[in-house]
Amino acid sequence: MIVVMQHGASEPQIQHVIERIRQLGLTEHLSRGEFRTVIGAVGDKRPEHQTILEAIDGVEQVVPIMKPYKLASREFHPVDSQVDVGGVTIGGGGVVLIAGPCAVENRQSLHTIAEAARAGGAAILRGGAFKPRTSPYSFQGLGLDGLKMLREVGDEFGMPVVTEVVAVKDVELVARYADMIQIGARNVQNFNLLSEVGMTGKPVFLKRGFATTIGEYLMSAEYVLSQGNRKLVLCERGIKTFETELRFTFDVSAVPVIKHNTHLPIFVDPSHACGRREFVTALALAGVAAGADGVMVEIHNCPEEAMCDGPQALLPEMFADLARRLADVAKAVGKELVPPGPRGRAGGKDHGERGAQIN
Amino acid sequence: MIVVMQHGASEPQIQHVIERIRQLGLTEHLSRGEFRTVIGAVGDKRPEHQTILEAIDGVEQVVPIMKPYKLASREFHPVDSQVDVGGVTIGGGGVVLIAGPCAVENRQSLHTIAEAARAGGAAILRGGAFKPRTSPYSFQGLGLDGLKMLREVGDEFGMPVVTEVVAVKDVELVARYADMIQIGARNVQNFNLLSEVGMTGKPVFLKRGFATTIGEYLMSAEYVLSQGNRKLVLCERGIKTFETELRFTFDVSAVPVIKHNTHLPIFVDPSHACGRREFVTALALAGVAAGADGVMVEIHNCPEEAMCDGPQALLPEMFADLARRLADVAKAVGKELVPPGPRGRAGGKDHGERGAQIN
Amino acid sequence: MIVVMQHGASEPQIQHVIERIRQLGLTEHLSRGEFRTVIGAVGDKRPEHQTILEAIDGVEQVVPIMKPYKLASREFHPVDSQVDVGGVTIGGGGVVLIAGPCAVENRQSLHTIAEAARAGGAAILRGGAFKPRTSPYSFQGLGLDGLKMLREVGDEFGMPVVTEVVAVKDVELVARYADMIQIGARNVQNFNLLSEVGMTGKPVFLKRGFATTIGEYLMSAEYVLSQGNRKLVLCERGIKTFETELRFTFDVSAVPVIKHNTHLPIFVDPSHACGRREFVTALALAGVAAGADGVMVEIHNCPEEAMCDGPQALLPEMFADLARRLADVAKAVGKELVPPGPRGRAGGKDHGERGAQIN
Amino acid sequence: MIVVMQHGASEPQIQHVIERIRQLGLTEHLSRGEFRTVIGAVGDKRPEHQTILEAIDGVEQVVPIMKPYKLASREFHPVDSQVDVGGVTIGGGGVVLIAGPCAVENRQSLHTIAEAARAGGAAILRGGAFKPRTSPYSFQGLGLDGLKMLREVGDEFGMPVVTEVVAVKDVELVARYADMIQIGARNVQNFNLLSEVGMTGKPVFLKRGFATTIGEYLMSAEYVLSQGNRKLVLCERGIKTFETELRFTFDVSAVPVIKHNTHLPIFVDPSHACGRREFVTALALAGVAAGADGVMVEIHNCPEEAMCDGPQALLPEMFADLARRLADVAKAVGKELVPPGPRGRAGGKDHGERGAQIN
Repeated sequence: MIVVMQHGASEPQIQHVIERIRQLGLTEHLSRGEFRTVIGAVGDKRPEHQTILEAIDGVEQVVPIMKPYKLASREFHPVDSQVDVGGVTIGGGGVVLIAGPCAVENRQSLHTIAEAARAGGAAILRGGAFKPRTSPYSFQGLGLDGLKMLREVGDEFGMPVVTEVVAVKDVELVARYADMIQIGARNVQNFNLLSEVGMTGKPVFLKRGFATTIGEYLMSAEYVLSQGNRKLVLCERGIKTFETELRFTFDVSAVPVIKHNTHLPIFVDPSHACGRREFVTALALAGVAAGADGVMVEIHNCPEEAMCDGPQALLPEMFADLARRLADVAKAVGKELVPPGPRGRAGGKDHGERGAQIN
Repeated sequence: MIVVMQHGASEPQIQHVIERIRQLGLTEHLSRGEFRTVIGAVGDKRPEHQTILEAIDGVEQVVPIMKPYKLASREFHPVDSQVDVGGVTIGGGGVVLIAGPCAVENRQSLHTIAEAARAGGAAILRGGAFKPRTSPYSFQGLGLDGLKMLREVGDEFGMPVVTEVVAVKDVELVARYADMIQIGARNVQNFNLLSEVGMTGKPVFLKRGFATTIGEYLMSAEYVLSQGNRKLVLCERGIKTFETELRFTFDVSAVPVIKHNTHLPIFVDPSHACGRREFVTALALAGVAAGADGVMVEIHNCPEEAMCDGPQALLPEMFADLARRLADVAKAVGKELVPPGPRGRAGGKDHGERGAQIN
Repeated sequence: MIVVMQHGASEPQIQHVIERIRQLGLTEHLSRGEFRTVIGAVGDKRPEHQTILEAIDGVEQVVPIMKPYKLASREFHPVDSQVDVGGVTIGGGGVVLIAGPCAVENRQSLHTIAEAARAGGAAILRGGAFKPRTSPYSFQGLGLDGLKMLREVGDEFGMPVVTEVVAVKDVELVARYADMIQIGARNVQNFNLLSEVGMTGKPVFLKRGFATTIGEYLMSAEYVLSQGNRKLVLCERGIKTFETELRFTFDVSAVPVIKHNTHLPIFVDPSHACGRREFVTALALAGVAAGADGVMVEIHNCPEEAMCDGPQALLPEMFADLARRLADVAKAVGKELVPPGPRGRAGGKDHGERGAQIN
Repeated sequence: MIVVMQHGASEPQIQHVIERIRQLGLTEHLSRGEFRTVIGAVGDKRPEHQTILEAIDGVEQVVPIMKPYKLASREFHPVDSQVDVGGVTIGGGGVVLIAGPCAVENRQSLHTIAEAARAGGAAILRGGAFKPRTSPYSFQGLGLDGLKMLREVGDEFGMPVVTEVVAVKDVELVARYADMIQIGARNVQNFNLLSEVGMTGKPVFLKRGFATTIGEYLMSAEYVLSQGNRKLVLCERGIKTFETELRFTFDVSAVPVIKHNTHLPIFVDPSHACGRREFVTALALAGVAAGADGVMVEIHNCPEEAMCDGPQALLPEMFADLARRLADVAKAVGKELVPPGPRGRAGGKDHGERGAQIN
């Protein structure tokens, strides 16, 4: 930490800062310039130290030197992390496709969509059972029924499933049915939910908030990691800016920055980033070209019947086309699409175990 | 709703949109221009209608005409709402000052700060018992002990208390001790929490998210209101922008816009908006000049000992100065500061009742 | 400047940075922490130094300690500056109202509007002769004819005039007719225009760009000041954010921040900030409550006939009301509205001199 | 255009809007809903119409249906435009690499960098002779000397050259030496400069402003196009957002959106977007994967000696690596890198003509 004193800060003010630095267990390092006195505080470990020193009279600003996140940091964990999700490896150098409907609507529709997802090349099935909706008057998801359908259809097609949890009270339930638990953008700083999900020990798919800086996002990651749960996958899904052409601005540079600063796998979600199906493929390709470990997209066999986010849902043939092109771009950057697992798996031993677990 | 068809949309596409409009129970209104066909859809009531129509082939965009919020809207409720918080009326044409520490730290410190808050003119006492912290390694609040201290000190000084809840599991507890329950900026789209707090029937103090548009913010308000709880107070506390001089950009225009669009009282929180005590007073004055119903500020008797947000805490004498100047500006715009209630009240009947309620 | 080395930077890299610091004429100050080596570079005066050091291998970041602007800085010029504009003092502790139409449209309309502006309390008349329009197909202003009308009507009502210049080739012309030259938001980083206008020696009214940080804005101010022209007035007029309810987000905190960091007078322009007349008054009051030295607003006697920005133009009676309320808020913060000069002045000595100057 | 009347707008207000619509030469189309009256105005051609109608009492908002740009629009010009720059075709289905130093510094350094640029695969050479610097105290470019060096070195290596113009007075000079004239982000709404550059008839490289929406950007394009100059190339270079990890947020979705809405070629400039060399390659690959027609990057043989933007300059070997990887990604999306022209060309006929032109 670097404490910059105000121009004209008094000697007692400077001494007081030095004293406080020592009280915090740090070592000071004084440097007097022509216009400013600057005091290094070496050894800081706790995030509070910055605000404590900033609150002192005569201090202009305190500049942190170290990133506030630790467990997420590549500095402390130089090797890329890998996360196993029901047999599919994320972060192992391949590109994983996650696809499915925005919300689970009914068994028949989910079945049709999952079939198209798998046929196109998706290794993991997504689908919302609990939907965080901006309006209290909108469809809020099928809840437990949706979870069951998702589990069954996933098993039938040999696809591990990921689904969002929006309330602490549902964490246990979602953990029972899902292979990976998603925390959505709106809950990225719902610290209570982060901790609870972290404690399940299940793989966690944590979307970036649309207004969290990368630094803040990684602090949210820290909430999950600090519960001892290292099975964490990140996902860029668009941020809020002044640009209005699309729903959000897809921050593709978050991919290489997160790769640089952390060891965690990072996905992109172009569907939510742009909100319009005609732009999803271009953004998916951009994400993988920039280094993403995977792509999550929404598909629907009849978008105008979708109960949410129809305008961004790809039709099955559009998804198949996206997957083909994605495979080419993946190869161009030295990777491969991770293929779906064997279809028969769903009826095998794993299924039985999961069944047992559910009862 | 106005459906704008793409340039060159086919006749079957247009007819399909008309059919869907009728299926949704709406009436269409066709208008063919030289370059675009535009179809009005009259009678829309549900937020889903927009995305359903947007998802149809040949549709360029759908422009909503009505605001998606209803219970918050001035259109449906033209008269300003008033909210009674433990005997203090918010939204009744006066300006209410809420002050206190960021977090409840210990009884002695809270007592000292509350005394200064009341002496300066604050009618309501604030203090956090559950703190939503960006870092899992930061102080997370005293929890139940903090709630009890806040209740006791509030009663002693005749000040109703407001405190934040960050988890659904704590809603009941907080509702038992607080006169008004705060939902913080990070939870503004934690829809589950909004509903739960709405159901308590207690006054709710809902801060704007730092990345929610005013429209989205009012949809969050709708979550509380739609539980039948009309005791809702809003609060502008700064939004995220590219400007880095201060922590957030204080969006003072949210005050007149919310006054114009809704009937709900609106506060400003200059402390969180700027993050530095030297700018708190100017922003507080601006907020009241723009029409705010009240101001929430953080004060501390020794900011460098504060367990959170010390740099933005006003010292007691700064707060007293702010209150004096605020009284002048309030008068200039035809209002008055609402004075604190009688100090003796804390020992009276109300206290007993609350006590009973707690057990 | 503080040079933060990467984790694991090598000894030769550290030595190389130290050498370069010395080559730049600065003194280094080395501090080795457990995870990072930090090197202070004392004595930096030139903005290039930061990027030079940042470009070196092994450097993680360079944190500047000093603000990059000098002449604008309160540190080097502690006393508030005052600017005389045709006899009206800006920055002298009073609040100055500048009003007039967006564009000069014709003599009759300008006369009517100026009369209303003066009657309401405006001391300075504004009006655009050269308009920077987003669309090449929009009205671009009357040019020289507009300047002449503005001058004549200003003189008739005893009001100094301010008008915008958008091209270097027009600077001399505008300087001949105007008492203060405006540089609009879109030209805030048109450095060539800034320098040229600075060289005229005329008072300059420099609007903040809608995407310049306060720091960048003050660097633009530095372009004018470094030409030896200290007659500079700043103006906050709204910035671009994700919020869409109004045209821009009025950054009222820019007022106290600029007051704190610089000695320059700062205005607010609520008309352009919000774009809708029903919100102009609230924002004007907020600006003055926050410490602004003046307010610039657009008025029109018939907004729907206005050739630009009609929706934000106040009607004369709305302007008169705004001025009355502004006087009350000014008084509440210890200031007074600066009254218009004597109406007869236009025919007096000043006028003759200006006439002489023009020919 | 759709005029939405306020809730409770009176009949005379509605009639007045209809009258005005007719006076503007448009046809009205009335639709009365339960809560709102909506009036379509068919036939609008001029951007002013929107603000005229918005300025009328009783009008809540006016929603434009047509994009305000015309010549840039794909609707009016469905086929992709191609621009010939000194023999290199931009927009013809290939990917063009433009590379060179931020600023021309001296002949030797430029020569070394150009050699590396060509060797790596750049077809066009960039280099600034006039630099728009945020600080008046920074290096402002070599001016005419820089232009001459750029021309000579470009000719030697058979590379057409692009360079920025920052002042109207220099347009003619720059047009004489450059094959393509760049307008930088800070001048994107310097409408005077846009028109002047448009009038030269030379190819124009127009960078997006860091705070212009895509719609506003295309209106700036319209300024160039409406001068009869169709040789226009666009370039995304990052926008301002709340994210602070990099200098700007690279808006990769601008690429497919601009491809969708217009017929103009679109480049990406990852160097300015991120400001740090370690992220340039990932963003370049993302841009091409998303459909960009080319990439402009800055390179330098000794970044720490660069007179501007050293931290973002690629070293020659990094550039060669970028070009190789870019060729792979281009192929994956069905394109090829456009190779540099023959090296001998510089001594040929073209050169003579250009020489003739200069004198």
